[in-house]
Amino acid sequence: MMINNGITPKQASEFLLQSDNILLLCHKNPDGDTIGSASGLMYALKKLGKCCAILCHDKIPEKYDYLHVETYCNQFIPDIVVAVDIASENLLGEGTLPYSENIDLCIDHHPSNSGYAKMTCCNDKLPATAQLMLEIIEEMGVELDKNIANCLYTGLITDTGCFKYSATTSATHIAGAKLFDAGAEHTFISNRFFMSKSRKNIMLEKYALNSLEFFYDDRCAMVVITKEIIDEIQAQPSDIEGISAMPRTIEGVDVGITIRQISESLFKISIRTSENANACEIAEGLGGGGHKRAAGCEVIGNIESAKNAILREVETALCK
Amino acid sequence: MMINNGITPKQASEFLLQSDNILLLCHKNPDGDTIGSASGLMYALKKLGKCCAILCHDKIPEKYDYLHVETYCNQFIPDIVVAVDIASENLLGEGTLPYSENIDLCIDHHPSNSGYAKMTCCNDKLPATAQLMLEIIEEMGVELDKNIANCLYTGLITDTGCFKYSATTSATHIAGAKLFDAGAEHTFISNRFFMSKSRKNIMLEKYALNSLEFFYDDRCAMVVITKEIIDEIQAQPSDIEGISAMPRTIEGVDVGITIRQISESLFKISIRTSENANACEIAEGLGGGGHKRAAGCEVIGNIESAKNAILREVETALCK
Repeated sequence: MMINNGITPKQASEFLLQSDNILLLCHKNPDGDTIGSASGLMYALKKLGKCCAILCHDKIPEKYDYLHVETYCNQFIPDIVVAVDIASENLLGEGTLPYSENIDLCIDHHPSNSGYAKMTCCNDKLPATAQLMLEIIEEMGVELDKNIANCLYTGLITDTGCFKYSATTSATHIAGAKLFDAGAEHTFISNRFFMSKSRKNIMLEKYALNSLEFFYDDRCAMVVITKEIIDEIQAQPSDIEGISAMPRTIEGVDVGITIRQISESLFKISIRTSENANACEIAEGLGGGGHKRAAGCEVIGNIESAKNAILREVETALCK
Repeated sequence: MMINNGITPKQASEFLLQSDNILLLCHKNPDGDTIGSASGLMYALKKLGKCCAILCHDKIPEKYDYLHVETYCNQFIPDIVVAVDIASENLLGEGTLPYSENIDLCIDHHPSNSGYAKMTCCNDKLPATAQLMLEIIEEMGVELDKNIANCLYTGLITDTGCFKYSATTSATHIAGAKLFDAGAEHTFISNRFFMSKSRKNIMLEKYALNSLEFFYDDRCAMVVITKEIIDEIQAQPSDIEGISAMPRTIEGVDVGITIRQISESLFKISIRTSENANACEIAEGLGGGGHKRAAGCEVIGNIESAKNAILREVETALCK
């Protein structure tokens, strides 16, 4: 990838070492990698005696409480502003204004990074920004400790599905080994993200499974989450995210569809595919878009017409 | 741990190098670690020009087909017999007779290894026999390849829940990195074991979630699987195993109960607990037993009386 003003981890570390008051930005709807990578850097910079805090458009979700993120509330005037795991300016959110108008450095791993920052340290071969952040912290000469390790381990496992996703490499495991050696509370963290479910998740799963239908010789599985259920459970978009992956994981299913009712007549459709179908092409048929294996679109109508519309596109894709 | 005739990985490798015809045994109801570790060793020994095959009381399940295990059917007369990942003689099964009567070497990681073999190479600090097998294969001087890596990676991730369980260490990640570098098809394998579910699993989950009830300030979650449902789905005990873990994984739940109807009046109860309750004590109250975090018992009666019986024990445990 080519990004304007791209810099190496070593150059990024040198730039960070020059400043004393550093503001870190996370992306909106923050996930484990933006929070873990930013807070890992925060602990490393504080170890060097610098002032550092984190600003995010949204509240940091409670499930990250154990990282004890110091949020920014004007406790210092930043010399530099650093965006962490943020591919484009759209993902910053108004809550980061006015700092998001002048970003000195972006540290990221997304192939789609738009190069919006003055300098960008981005490695899109890595499965998580946390893996890149480990390199930068090592370059700064900061010795890893339990706090830093817990933060980076959180980023690493949430963006790799605990070392399962295809972008994981041997270097990711070497990074994992270093974080273990530095005292990462790995059992606690992996339990939290992969071995426990909220009541809302469980209730959504129940309703999703009750709506489960199969089509086209069982190669397509579809679930529907109505607005009534979403309101009843008070489910957040992040709760539904988890459900979207489920239909595709059923044995023999090439296309998994999750239809989520937004309002009386608006439906958001999430499409996940195996290598035997192109999710992006299916979504594009209804004016949406995305990636080969995961894409989405919106449909106006009622539940039956939304189902029929997406099924027509799925049929076309499966006949190819 | 102290085991009679305990030997080091180096001594185990030297012993293996001395023989030309080697029979490997897996434990009955074979899992990913016994199959992966044995077949990894099989490929390593074949690379050295030796005759080697695997014998197991049960058929190797289809989901391990990609490892292309060569099963033993008298194609050579063994010089030595090696048990892999087998803690005690009880786990061999009659299908391994007469070879199981005279086991030269056992390679294992279970703390409960009974020392039944003439020589035992056991490291109970490791989360998987596959991690120990990697050491032994390296000691033999065999260069890792894709076949060996796929086998050992299968053992490593199935016994560690893909690096999630508490026995995982930095050395486990270093082992993972080596297997990646040797060409392990990690995405394919982790998808197979952790990102796909059978139709039976999905249907069981649906019925289990529909029966889900909470008790004692939501600290106890209970699901009931009736015989009618088991018969309808044609679910195997192994399908139900996966369900038993679910109730306890719900946020805030200290005791997860799964009641499975065996016949009209017989119920098997599986108990899983957090560190806030003792599963074994709960089970013992109804004549069962097990471990602190996972235990089981049987109850005779009807569904209501079975529920009431176990709930009384749960209440006692939660009041402690």
